[in-house]
Amino acid sequence: MPSNSSPEPGFARHAFVLPRAPDGGDAVYLAGNSLGAQPRAARDAVLAAVDEQWARVGVAGWEDSGWWATPQRLGDRVGALVGAAPGQTVVGDSTSVQLFGALIAAARLRPGRSVLLSDAGHFPTDRYLATSVARLTGLTLVTASPDAMAPDADTAVVAVPAVDFRTGERWDLAAIVDRAHAAGAVVVADLSHAVGVLPVDLDGLGVDLAVGCTYKYLNGGPGAPAFAYVAARHHDVLDPPLTGWTGHAEPFAMTEAWTPAPGVGRLRVGTPPMLSMLALDGALSVFDGSDSPALPGVHAASLALGDAFLEALPAGVDVVTPREHGRRGGHVAVRVPDAEGRCAALARRGVVVDARPPDLLRFGFAAPYVTLDDARVAARELAALL
Amino acid sequence: MPSNSSPEPGFARHAFVLPRAPDGGDAVYLAGNSLGAQPRAARDAVLAAVDEQWARVGVAGWEDSGWWATPQRLGDRVGALVGAAPGQTVVGDSTSVQLFGALIAAARLRPGRSVLLSDAGHFPTDRYLATSVARLTGLTLVTASPDAMAPDADTAVVAVPAVDFRTGERWDLAAIVDRAHAAGAVVVADLSHAVGVLPVDLDGLGVDLAVGCTYKYLNGGPGAPAFAYVAARHHDVLDPPLTGWTGHAEPFAMTEAWTPAPGVGRLRVGTPPMLSMLALDGALSVFDGSDSPALPGVHAASLALGDAFLEALPAGVDVVTPREHGRRGGHVAVRVPDAEGRCAALARRGVVVDARPPDLLRFGFAAPYVTLDDARVAARELAALL
Repeated sequence: MPSNSSPEPGFARHAFVLPRAPDGGDAVYLAGNSLGAQPRAARDAVLAAVDEQWARVGVAGWEDSGWWATPQRLGDRVGALVGAAPGQTVVGDSTSVQLFGALIAAARLRPGRSVLLSDAGHFPTDRYLATSVARLTGLTLVTASPDAMAPDADTAVVAVPAVDFRTGERWDLAAIVDRAHAAGAVVVADLSHAVGVLPVDLDGLGVDLAVGCTYKYLNGGPGAPAFAYVAARHHDVLDPPLTGWTGHAEPFAMTEAWTPAPGVGRLRVGTPPMLSMLALDGALSVFDGSDSPALPGVHAASLALGDAFLEALPAGVDVVTPREHGRRGGHVAVRVPDAEGRCAALARRGVVVDARPPDLLRFGFAAPYVTLDDARVAARELAALL
Repeated sequence: MPSNSSPEPGFARHAFVLPRAPDGGDAVYLAGNSLGAQPRAARDAVLAAVDEQWARVGVAGWEDSGWWATPQRLGDRVGALVGAAPGQTVVGDSTSVQLFGALIAAARLRPGRSVLLSDAGHFPTDRYLATSVARLTGLTLVTASPDAMAPDADTAVVAVPAVDFRTGERWDLAAIVDRAHAAGAVVVADLSHAVGVLPVDLDGLGVDLAVGCTYKYLNGGPGAPAFAYVAARHHDVLDPPLTGWTGHAEPFAMTEAWTPAPGVGRLRVGTPPMLSMLALDGALSVFDGSDSPALPGVHAASLALGDAFLEALPAGVDVVTPREHGRRGGHVAVRVPDAEGRCAALARRGVVVDARPPDLLRFGFAAPYVTLDDARVAARELAALL
């Protein structure tokens, strides 16, 4: 069981391999909000999957190596990190694909309503897919800032992120869910920039559906498969559009019609990319190993990193992320001219961050492997460039 | 360049690690129509991706390790194996997801028409997704055997496999395409049981869209991402439903609206599972390495394996696969009572095949690693069980 003590930032650094800086040493790696560093356990899991499972067990691995059960087994592991009781979360496909399926399934929970209400500043794939889903379902897409959303009796679905991908602002999911439910709408939350860096209580908040990314703070590896959550109260009626064979109640019966698997299993689509799935399987031990801190502690350590960074910044730097702990996700964004050029210059100095158009630099504070020194070095190097 | 000489069956066995038999030796592995054996080059590619790319390069790997370009780079490599000139094929997502997107995009190419005509015996995921697509688009789903399809002026889309997943029968794609085009319909072909075991000439046949699986005869590993093909003549107007951010013309501009990437790039959806993608990258060297035989030779070797198996079977075994070379895919299916039990019994004897309900055993003849001896041993062990 994860421990409740509050860990030091960098508490699991020994469990990671960090990207190299130009001088050959470890980089100050603050891009974990984009691609997490590599947990050694992820490498071990991939190697076992390749050498002990695929190579030696072959196709029997679907049963004998547990591959078939992996989407739900991993789903429960990820679910435990976002407040989901077992049986409500599945891992597989990309966040975009999961989101597409979740939005249509959500719309079908409210057949008489006409509006899909989505965050105006949502991550691009969320906006693009909301547009496509509105077209396919006949809904009207309306956008607003999450804190200004006013769902009403026409609102079928409210689609919001937990944390803004640009500014790092953490939205008040509890208030958003309450307003949506008061209007009779269902909530689809995108947890991509929240999972693994701050506690989320999906069951407690009453979120209806959620999706999220596992290659950021969960360190699952490049393009690691996403997760999808559906609250148990919707399982009996959930009607997803991506009716792939692995979501069938009896996939190997190969019957004429698609009969959904009980529960969240119906969100499985095609055959999942097992090597990428099992990298994530290894990576999750950072968060649910016997000596792993619980998410509130990880969150406190991430906030401490952000504070150290903010304190070390010279006055006058334009920080767009709220300073209040309750309104901050895992990254801090600053507005600078020529963000792309600054990003490249920092990389040459061994500080890895990312740039988002038009003018933002994002500093990701993944507490398992980022230290207070890293945060201060990043602030100092940024200051030197400005 | 691949060679045009006709190779011996098992011509690349040295390049594979074969699953273990119960006695500790190599199995007679005839399940390559379900999950291909592991090419040593696939292991090498995964290890490089883990140790040299993700671990050391980190998020910069999207550019510096070529990850971003991988879906189209692999697409062109797979495309070359199915008669697709470069720029028409992309790799990523599962076959089910690719098929869903392809069917809707195909339907949108024929907006005035009302029928989606699909193989009555299509692989389950193809049937289930056709049902979902018909519901979302308002089309009427009509099913028929591929050789009995009669598309007419109402037919928007004709969806067929190249090879029947149960019987191993190879359909006459040329005739199907001609009939569909004569009626003004577009063809979506599923090449899952064809790619890597027989030559397909997508460009030459005039197929409109195609999808296929890379973990069968292409040996990409468990759940390796699928591919999708769209003929260049449709690129300007192709209107796919899965409008993920990586299919945007300028994904990092993060603009308000989705502007499709030029060409087949618009079929990219979310972030692809890179470790699984790069396993496939390694695996493809079996087919496009400097000393790899061309597909007609691979096909001839696979047919020779099937012939050796059929000749060694005792009279009276109920073979459901056509014996004519022109009507056979890569596997041979026999009807037996208690197929599941027979499948397990063969596995205990070191012969790995698979069973499909209600009563079929499938023997897959992947010529790169299956030898004539393997085919004869399988027939002898099957005979001993009957």
